[in-house]
Amino acid sequence: MGDGEENRRITLAEVAQQAGVSLSTVSKVLNGRQDVSSATRVKVERLLETHSYRRTTRVAREAPLIELVFHELDSVWSMELIRGVENLAKAHQASVVLTESGTRHAPAPDWIEGVLQRRPIGVVLVFSSLPDAVKRQLDARSIPFVIVDPAGDPEPDVPSVGSANWSGGVAATRHLIDLGHRRIGIITGPEDMLCSLARLDGYRSALNMAGLAHDPSLVRFGDFHVEGGYARAMELLQLPDRPTAVFAGSDLQALGVMEAARVRGLRVPEDLSVVGYDDVMIARWSSPPLTTIHQPLREMGEEAVQMLLRLRAGEPSVTRMELATSLVVRKSTAPPAARNP
Amino acid sequence: MGDGEENRRITLAEVAQQAGVSLSTVSKVLNGRQDVSSATRVKVERLLETHSYRRTTRVAREAPLIELVFHELDSVWSMELIRGVENLAKAHQASVVLTESGTRHAPAPDWIEGVLQRRPIGVVLVFSSLPDAVKRQLDARSIPFVIVDPAGDPEPDVPSVGSANWSGGVAATRHLIDLGHRRIGIITGPEDMLCSLARLDGYRSALNMAGLAHDPSLVRFGDFHVEGGYARAMELLQLPDRPTAVFAGSDLQALGVMEAARVRGLRVPEDLSVVGYDDVMIARWSSPPLTTIHQPLREMGEEAVQMLLRLRAGEPSVTRMELATSLVVRKSTAPPAARNP
Repeated sequence: MGDGEENRRITLAEVAQQAGVSLSTVSKVLNGRQDVSSATRVKVERLLETHSYRRTTRVAREAPLIELVFHELDSVWSMELIRGVENLAKAHQASVVLTESGTRHAPAPDWIEGVLQRRPIGVVLVFSSLPDAVKRQLDARSIPFVIVDPAGDPEPDVPSVGSANWSGGVAATRHLIDLGHRRIGIITGPEDMLCSLARLDGYRSALNMAGLAHDPSLVRFGDFHVEGGYARAMELLQLPDRPTAVFAGSDLQALGVMEAARVRGLRVPEDLSVVGYDDVMIARWSSPPLTTIHQPLREMGEEAVQMLLRLRAGEPSVTRMELATSLVVRKSTAPPAARNP
Repeated sequence: MGDGEENRRITLAEVAQQAGVSLSTVSKVLNGRQDVSSATRVKVERLLETHSYRRTTRVAREAPLIELVFHELDSVWSMELIRGVENLAKAHQASVVLTESGTRHAPAPDWIEGVLQRRPIGVVLVFSSLPDAVKRQLDARSIPFVIVDPAGDPEPDVPSVGSANWSGGVAATRHLIDLGHRRIGIITGPEDMLCSLARLDGYRSALNMAGLAHDPSLVRFGDFHVEGGYARAMELLQLPDRPTAVFAGSDLQALGVMEAARVRGLRVPEDLSVVGYDDVMIARWSSPPLTTIHQPLREMGEEAVQMLLRLRAGEPSVTRMELATSLVVRKSTAPPAARNP
């Protein structure tokens, strides 16, 4: 790999000389920049073609990158989203750059520097919003971006993919009502997230539609984690007239509810029915396997990449897409046991 | 951002001219390649310094990439490894390119093309081996690589990070013996993986050290998945003299054992103790929370990046590193219940 092989190829300096332009102009043409006259562009491109110039420096074009940014990689559904994005990226010969940055609300400021240097074909952000400065920087480089927002709180001017939270809340609650439950508790997500409120509203509407009263003492806000599910379930199970079923608002919270039941000496589903939300892998693996609302996380990742590619191609694209949720019945739900008065 | 700003800076062609070397030599110096005499290197570097050359084309250095390749992203411990690699990459201002490719044994052939184009600062592979052709291609580009190999089956000439499987098997079994168990079943991993054999040998040695006989009817090979754990546990629990404890060889298999116990009407830990292996998040979240062997997956990812950076810097580095495993006692193990003869 000495100078021998290199010298057989034309150098960019030689192209510049033959075209009568500066080396930086040749470089701009190679990198597809717009601030070069079209006459110059054509001249340079013909020279490169004639000499079969191998674009060893065009990293961004030959090995395209899609950026995927999370604020937190340890939530169990990150992997499902990653797989969706990775699947579709691979189908388009692109690789995925994975970054953990910032808070639930926005990536950290230094993140954007790396993105601008890597020149990805697009950015998928798992955040509920995006600072205006970041939007402007990406827009200025024509780098399209899409928010995947399981929290359901997108800004109207940002393309985003979510799922149907309200319908999910209705389906979970209706399933429990159909089994015969009348005292149904809910542990939804944090109070400041739209998805929590949408699922809670779905729960209330399902009760209303069935002509059942809504008892505010059976409603709790959680944190989407196991510990929160456990703590709130312990409160619900200590009520004088405890619920016979709990809609847990996330699979992790449902695991916490099952552990609370175990500690209180209650069997699931014989003494307490539990419904989760998300349908991540652990829902299948818990003991008993968890009845839950399937949120199509992998498809949401795939859809986000599809949106990116449409945006990049300048095709018209919807701004907000909500994928359907669906009930998956496993073994954590059953009719309520007959109780002594 | 027109030509004005660009022209105020020295071009690489001018540096080459002033140094009396070819443009490709200047480029080699910039890219840190070794096939340039040190006199030439010093001359070129001084010129670049004098003219405050801004390395706008050095994408690889300004936004460095670390490649992380899995054959399968859906195993629960992928995320822990990803977080380890991502943590340490971020500490070195590098980004992580995540790829799913090939089989358990090696990445797919097309994967290497993308890597050579992206010119990462190094490659972390979660595979048990690497084809010679891939090794040669990476070596020729001076791209260092490290295998993270939880299966414990590394090739001697490839730098790799693993963990202490035999010691883990001893610790799990000894914990059950110390609780008073005498009939201890084991469901280890697949028969063709070294880590399975190491954990099984650890189990046998712990029994021997305690003066207990080793009963081959209590030994099963699994698949490291929940379903395999469930099926093998059903076999063990149907034995006339069933085990009072099972060492499950992976946390997923342990979940399968717990579900088998539930289906057979046995309580964990009152009627059956269960020990997992890995200590992934679900071990904390299962009901009851799982006693398990902690495999330091995140640290293994971090260590792999450290090894890459040492290799890249030309520092001496060990070829094989095994991190320690440790017992984490939670609530799935207890002394055996007194049984009627």
